Amino acid sequence: MAKNADDMGSRLQRAALDLFREQGYDRTTAAGIAARAGVTERTFFRYFADKREVLFGGEAVLRSALLRAIAEAPEQLGPLDTLFRSFQSVGSLLENNRPFSVPRQEIISATPALQEREQAKLAALADALAVALKARGATELQSVLAARTGMAAFAMATVAWLEHPQPGLADRLDLILLELKTMFAAVSPADE
Amino acid sequence: MAKNADDMGSRLQRAALDLFREQGYDRTTAAGIAARAGVTERTFFRYFADKREVLFGGEAVLRSALLRAIAEAPEQLGPLDTLFRSFQSVGSLLENNRPFSVPRQEIISATPALQEREQAKLAALADALAVALKARGATELQSVLAARTGMAAFAMATVAWLEHPQPGLADRLDLILLELKTMFAAVSPADE
Repeated sequence: MAKNADDMGSRLQRAALDLFREQGYDRTTAAGIAARAGVTERTFFRYFADKREVLFGGEAVLRSALLRAIAEAPEQLGPLDTLFRSFQSVGSLLENNRPFSVPRQEIISATPALQEREQAKLAALADALAVALKARGATELQSVLAARTGMAAFAMATVAWLEHPQPGLADRLDLILLELKTMFAAVSPADE
Repeated sequence: MAKNADDMGSRLQRAALDLFREQGYDRTTAAGIAARAGVTERTFFRYFADKREVLFGGEAVLRSALLRAIAEAPEQLGPLDTLFRSFQSVGSLLENNRPFSVPRQEIISATPALQEREQAKLAALADALAVALKARGATELQSVLAARTGMAAFAMATVAWLEHPQPGLADRLDLILLELKTMFAAVSPADE
């Protein structure tokens, strides 16, 4: 059952991507996507709340994978190490999804309505990561700061890697974490 | 002339806030806001592109103040110090705007459509700050990382300060910068 549900979700996503590319996002309707996938409009709405959501179906899978990795990280790891380790753990998930993610990102980059939805999704995901970090003992401030900073870094690494596959996602994440560490080491806070 | 334009913009913003609170965001129209402010709908659309934008009119003022502060920062300052100094420099601007900003933030927090627009605005603002940091000699990666991280921290400090005026915005920004510095100092990058 779960397999069939996944298949239907993927079929609708591929149909949506094809239509967005062929005729543009604005001219594509949920009914048109359903027709291309060979199902009824009613079936479309059993899987997705609206035309935008069809491109964000993978977010739930990514979110549970990240939350699981955070929960399973060694106790002694600090919030940022925990978070970046969880990002590294979803590398093969993202690799496998690349054939769908590349055209998806192109459509999003070209469509303001989808960019807004993506920003909102990233913010919601950061909130969920913050809750998971807090459950491991970080303070509220640490959790939220780490989650928002980490999410911004993760989104940046992912988008750059979708545009150019080399360097790989893992190397990009390492590079970004090192760059952030170096930049913050150079900061002179007011009370020092 | 500029003074009058500002006055009309503020009048429309106050009318919009009042109506959003009285009857809810969804039931308020651009025409209704114009009527409350005693002007025509056509006048409303001379100032704002749509009903959402009326709450984001201050963004242009904030953006130019931040960009000016970045351009004027001492040459030897690194990207994060430059950025946090620019945030500190707009403190009195935000203080003066507090009577409008508090109810505005309440409406945004309660309205998903406005949250999406706010996220998009913050992302666009971060992009503009990144360009300004790059113009001072930071690399592309440093500029974008600093701008996105800094913007997330700034938004977090501002929202918390709108909910509780004490500690003040300047102290919250200092605290956040110090917390980030401490957390990144504890990170163990893969190549160390």
